[in-house]
Amino acid sequence: MHGVVMHSPGDVRVEDRDDPTIIDPTDAIIRLTATCICGSDLWPYRGVERVDHKLMGHEYVGVVEQIGDDVKTLKVGDFVVGSFVISDNTCEICQAGYQSKCVHAQFVSGTQAELARIPYADGTLVATPGPPDADLIPSLLAASDVLGTGWFAAVAAEVGPGKTVAVVGDGAVGLMGVLAAKQLGADRIIAMSRHADRQALAREFGATDIVEERGAEGVARIRELTDGLGAHCVIEAVGTEESMLQAIHATRGGGHVGFVGVAHEGVNLPLDQLFFAEVHLHGGPAPVRRFLPELIQKIWNHEIDPGKVFDLKIPLEEAAAGYAAMNERRAIKVLLTL
Amino acid sequence: MHGVVMHSPGDVRVEDRDDPTIIDPTDAIIRLTATCICGSDLWPYRGVERVDHKLMGHEYVGVVEQIGDDVKTLKVGDFVVGSFVISDNTCEICQAGYQSKCVHAQFVSGTQAELARIPYADGTLVATPGPPDADLIPSLLAASDVLGTGWFAAVAAEVGPGKTVAVVGDGAVGLMGVLAAKQLGADRIIAMSRHADRQALAREFGATDIVEERGAEGVARIRELTDGLGAHCVIEAVGTEESMLQAIHATRGGGHVGFVGVAHEGVNLPLDQLFFAEVHLHGGPAPVRRFLPELIQKIWNHEIDPGKVFDLKIPLEEAAAGYAAMNERRAIKVLLTL
Repeated sequence: MHGVVMHSPGDVRVEDRDDPTIIDPTDAIIRLTATCICGSDLWPYRGVERVDHKLMGHEYVGVVEQIGDDVKTLKVGDFVVGSFVISDNTCEICQAGYQSKCVHAQFVSGTQAELARIPYADGTLVATPGPPDADLIPSLLAASDVLGTGWFAAVAAEVGPGKTVAVVGDGAVGLMGVLAAKQLGADRIIAMSRHADRQALAREFGATDIVEERGAEGVARIRELTDGLGAHCVIEAVGTEESMLQAIHATRGGGHVGFVGVAHEGVNLPLDQLFFAEVHLHGGPAPVRRFLPELIQKIWNHEIDPGKVFDLKIPLEEAAAGYAAMNERRAIKVLLTL
Repeated sequence: MHGVVMHSPGDVRVEDRDDPTIIDPTDAIIRLTATCICGSDLWPYRGVERVDHKLMGHEYVGVVEQIGDDVKTLKVGDFVVGSFVISDNTCEICQAGYQSKCVHAQFVSGTQAELARIPYADGTLVATPGPPDADLIPSLLAASDVLGTGWFAAVAAEVGPGKTVAVVGDGAVGLMGVLAAKQLGADRIIAMSRHADRQALAREFGATDIVEERGAEGVARIRELTDGLGAHCVIEAVGTEESMLQAIHATRGGGHVGFVGVAHEGVNLPLDQLFFAEVHLHGGPAPVRRFLPELIQKIWNHEIDPGKVFDLKIPLEEAAAGYAAMNERRAIKVLLTL
């Protein structure tokens, strides 16, 4: 079968490799219907993160092709959406809603491919109510990571009715954070973006205000818009020191920051600034599995259309062109068809 | 009147200065009954924080001697406990329980003295039900900062019934965190301490376990004690990178860290470690005013005896000796009598 391999920064190839097989009785093999390129895939692409013949991809929807003997909730032929972190969904940590920190957690890798092996299939995959119409595929795929991650960020930031929410980062996750904030009933949603296409999509997803300034000026604008107090809730979807400080300082004392931008080794947060800001900070790799049943239902009911975030759709075989487009910001997010 | 001045690191003197007077109509002047030395006073004493003729002291209990025309809830003669941060207690931030981030917030300074001027007296001071018996004075004084801070840390860490709590830091605030965790109904309270006297006091305040190891070994011990998962709640009461990482890694995924150790400029938190730990982090200067009415009542009813944390009581005039005793760890916390 074919799959995407990153040999070294910038060197993305589609190569033939062996079909995956059932190893553990809790495994499933799925045939991918669609997959995509993540903003976090750009870190190794740009050489910020080490990479050496890595099997790429951790977002996926597809059809169950084979199951291990212990898989109970899925059957061959089911259409499934999975989380980017494997989870048993039964341990104490999973039961508390933190499937991304499951005692059996492992990051998915290799789903930019025709087939994938998914361990702990019962705990990781969620079947849709039936075979989805083609127009739902992009949204279901979004649920697998960016929507689930943006949703988690909004929940971590305690977004709800009566709240003013600011969103730092206008990539796919930030835009999904806007959509989640709207769904969770926020009064006012301020998207921080300086790109016209992303501003337009943010407004479509529910943003009420756009702030183009960054850093200290961006913080000052958020404070101006909130009677000098700062936002109740801030979603951080970048992962740098600058973006974290922008998020923290844009939040009122006692307010909440939900952060999901992947932080890299060597990125530090000045502890004194965090201390004196006196905000709540919560984030990390999103426990997407917690939200999947609810998100799938909302998509199934056509209540939300997160699939709009994919502004480029190309065949898996052209993955290298997709990486280049995202890297050069010619695309917000690239869907790979199979 | 006499008051404590720190001229430079290690140089603490009791000097004569003018009596404070009412400046704003919302001010009160109080005559101190007792005051004390804070662990945070040791930062400038040790030269970690700049200091130049600073008026010391921010913990205080005393009797109202004079009030401005706009003070409504207090009268001359009232015995009062105050927070170490001035607050109006009416703004939107105060009403949300974050008086330490009040729009009129300022840090108290100069209460190691015979008299002190307290701005926004109505919003900052709380009167006791009547003149307290002498044996209650140390506990009421503790409420002014260390108890209120330890309590906030426990609340920020979401301590409650069924929870296992670990406490990093065995200074006065950490010990008050143990007391708060006990009061808030924690099942198990693990104090991290390698000093016999502090271990004994921790047990007296409610600790069920003691861990002497620090850093990675300390984290490993906490994990051993919690089925490999980590504590639900961790109180951090030191303020260094090492103590913060110890707290974060001792917490289970999805768990809560309440941090109140004062972080200094230049102390950094590795953001990737915070990200992948996936804990909740909340802390900062405690909004003591939020808790004062409840804490005063518990002390008044003899339900708690936080005053035990003062293991050295000396006259204000001997403040320099008190600083030396705390700096050399001969005393946990020093009460200054007047």
